[in-house]
Amino acid sequence: MESTDFVNYFDAELGRFIDEWKEFLSFESISTDPAYTDQCEACASWLVSHLERLGFTCSMLETEGKPVVFAELEGSPEKPTVLFYGHYDVQPVDPVALWESSPFEPELRNGRMYGRGAQDNKGQVFYFIKAIEALRAHGIEIPTIKMLIEGEEESGSEGISNKLPDWTDKVAADVLMVCDTGMIDPQVPTVTMGLRGMAACEVRVFGPLYDLHSGVFGGIVLNPIQELVRIASMLHDQDGKVAVPGFYDGVEAPSPELVSRALEAPLDLGRLEESVGVPFVGGEQNFGVLERRGLRPTLEINGIGGGYQGAGGKTVIPSSAFMKLSMRLVEGQDPGKILDAVERFVMACVSDGCRVEISDKNIGGEALLLPLESELLSTAVDSLEAEFGVKPALLWEGASIPVIPLLQRTSGATPLLIGFGLEEDAIHSPNESFSLKQLKDGFRYVSNLLRKL
Amino acid sequence: MESTDFVNYFDAELGRFIDEWKEFLSFESISTDPAYTDQCEACASWLVSHLERLGFTCSMLETEGKPVVFAELEGSPEKPTVLFYGHYDVQPVDPVALWESSPFEPELRNGRMYGRGAQDNKGQVFYFIKAIEALRAHGIEIPTIKMLIEGEEESGSEGISNKLPDWTDKVAADVLMVCDTGMIDPQVPTVTMGLRGMAACEVRVFGPLYDLHSGVFGGIVLNPIQELVRIASMLHDQDGKVAVPGFYDGVEAPSPELVSRALEAPLDLGRLEESVGVPFVGGEQNFGVLERRGLRPTLEINGIGGGYQGAGGKTVIPSSAFMKLSMRLVEGQDPGKILDAVERFVMACVSDGCRVEISDKNIGGEALLLPLESELLSTAVDSLEAEFGVKPALLWEGASIPVIPLLQRTSGATPLLIGFGLEEDAIHSPNESFSLKQLKDGFRYVSNLLRKL
Repeated sequence: MESTDFVNYFDAELGRFIDEWKEFLSFESISTDPAYTDQCEACASWLVSHLERLGFTCSMLETEGKPVVFAELEGSPEKPTVLFYGHYDVQPVDPVALWESSPFEPELRNGRMYGRGAQDNKGQVFYFIKAIEALRAHGIEIPTIKMLIEGEEESGSEGISNKLPDWTDKVAADVLMVCDTGMIDPQVPTVTMGLRGMAACEVRVFGPLYDLHSGVFGGIVLNPIQELVRIASMLHDQDGKVAVPGFYDGVEAPSPELVSRALEAPLDLGRLEESVGVPFVGGEQNFGVLERRGLRPTLEINGIGGGYQGAGGKTVIPSSAFMKLSMRLVEGQDPGKILDAVERFVMACVSDGCRVEISDKNIGGEALLLPLESELLSTAVDSLEAEFGVKPALLWEGASIPVIPLLQRTSGATPLLIGFGLEEDAIHSPNESFSLKQLKDGFRYVSNLLRKL
Repeated sequence: MESTDFVNYFDAELGRFIDEWKEFLSFESISTDPAYTDQCEACASWLVSHLERLGFTCSMLETEGKPVVFAELEGSPEKPTVLFYGHYDVQPVDPVALWESSPFEPELRNGRMYGRGAQDNKGQVFYFIKAIEALRAHGIEIPTIKMLIEGEEESGSEGISNKLPDWTDKVAADVLMVCDTGMIDPQVPTVTMGLRGMAACEVRVFGPLYDLHSGVFGGIVLNPIQELVRIASMLHDQDGKVAVPGFYDGVEAPSPELVSRALEAPLDLGRLEESVGVPFVGGEQNFGVLERRGLRPTLEINGIGGGYQGAGGKTVIPSSAFMKLSMRLVEGQDPGKILDAVERFVMACVSDGCRVEISDKNIGGEALLLPLESELLSTAVDSLEAEFGVKPALLWEGASIPVIPLLQRTSGATPLLIGFGLEEDAIHSPNESFSLKQLKDGFRYVSNLLRKL
């Protein structure tokens, strides 16, 4: 069996693949907003019936939140059991006015599929499934495959995290495959060696009982927006360091060996800066860009709002104002303790005459840091190099997949994070997309690796 | 002619008054938002036909913005000519979900009319018109009355301000009556002796070309929200003083005589604090509440926005974030120079890696400060005391009516600012209202004063 056979299969079946992929993308499975709960459930049901048609035995695992799709396909007992983790939920779509085609009416333009989730994570889940389909169509012996596809990755993975301890037998495996990461360059297959952890919350400052006229009350009441920006501005010091006491407790500067391996990746920072339109001058000023991106923790304000936001002006002192915070964490940081530290800090900052509430606390998960050497890593690197003719890069990623460290512990499996995302896919942004080339690369990787495991 | 005759007339005609008032309030004449231009014009037309029915000669004066209604009713040449200034435009209605009845479907509940503009300024314009109607119905000789009712008071009065120099003859008068102010207490008629000036603008911080994933780019790009809050937090120092260099140029501390007259007003600050739910601890810490409220300048953030504002979280670094600022000014401050100072300050604060734009600059107008003694003031105070049996209060108001100082210069008239607004009217807020009692008090004041002038 040659790798080209898989390529031929992909090319021959592409029309049908596109139709199925569009179906998968058309579900408005936004997990963070309760208004889309039905759409999440419908998407999970679609996955179950799709996987059953391929021969998987499926079940819908209930959680306190969105259901988790569990699918199992028995394979060779001599091969290591593979647990695949993915998610069917997607990010919100606002600002929706900036989308060129409707986010949930996927459209193929110039070889790219546009739609929310096109890459993250439906596109990458989809090529994994299609690779299994191809292996079976060719009658190739594959490992036992377990798939765990959850519906709350974009909103903290709380449901699956709480239930995993009950599913220890179900998820037991040798290899934990995840296709939810990216490449450092369209030509360079990339193995993700680390992920940051996550914690998030909302901070709301309350002032007067109702919105006040800023002429009549300006200069005598504390303006909640001004109180909010004062607190918000204290979250970082002037060197870009997070100023919340305790934030860096347990954090060690990355080892010289880790930094040097990270710097080996042929990452074209100039090109990346050009594509996003700004220089990489943010964050902790005493660390390099690659360290700040993947090896150091951050605190970002993801949203802020209060008062009048329409056209023109309105002279109002609003009754409240809010900000949404998220923290990316590294080894040694506990998400729950970090949230406590942020809460203590904010509460200590607030002035008399205002009141602050912290809500929507989300303990996303700890960071993941994989060993620099392992047998699985070698197999994967060799397989990628054989298939794509390029030495794969190792990458320490800034993003989070909160549940991975917990899944690693529960399943006993060694994580293998390889994905085919690119910055131009604009995940989490308007006009998210994934190219047919990327879909095919992912399909080639999975089908070849599963044969070799 | 006794004052009670006017009262009888009011009571007898109240049913019709309410219907007419509701008609006036039903126009969605929000001037700050271009979407409501037609509604502004329709409201102006309604005023013209209403005033023509009362015997006024009316014209619609065009400006670069909304039209100004001009109405004239010839009266006794022996009496001082009265120029009445008011406005038919209203504030935006958001947050609209907090309204108990629709803002433009006025509703009378428990003796209060609820609707946007119920007080500010349609309600107070309306009792002035009804007082003229009553005087004429009683055949009483009145002064020549000129009415100038503009449509951009809530958005800077730019149209009328640019045209006033051309209208010098038209607006020439002896007394400039304005009913757009409030009472310090429901039982105490109040003469407003000063108004603050106004300037406003929007500040927007631009970062990446599009919204970025805060995991992938957190720690390497400058987050526009964080840059915005950093700049915003620098607008005031820790004593609540505005920290923009040049902001206080030309401002003198209020004279001891002025402060002592201001302190005479029987203002129940404790009651006011209770009604808004917060203590008056904001603003410049080295001045008293009454000075901070009406005699000192302020800078307030009226709105802020950026990033994700929906339910739950979204891990995004937005491409931009904004705030809306307004400054209340006192004698000695030039609104144009203040805006320049704010712009210079903001531009000097911004970091490399972000870009800032200042837009929607609104040179509202200078402050107004009336002399502590004048013949007109004595007449008005005596008339109010005779009608209401209470010594009127003198008040230095924190709010602005931007065009008054210019109108004063152009018309040659002495301003007289008496109005019947109360804090509970919630102007600029959801559920704005004005009671029938206040409407009647205003009507009693105007009809009696115009007879005595």
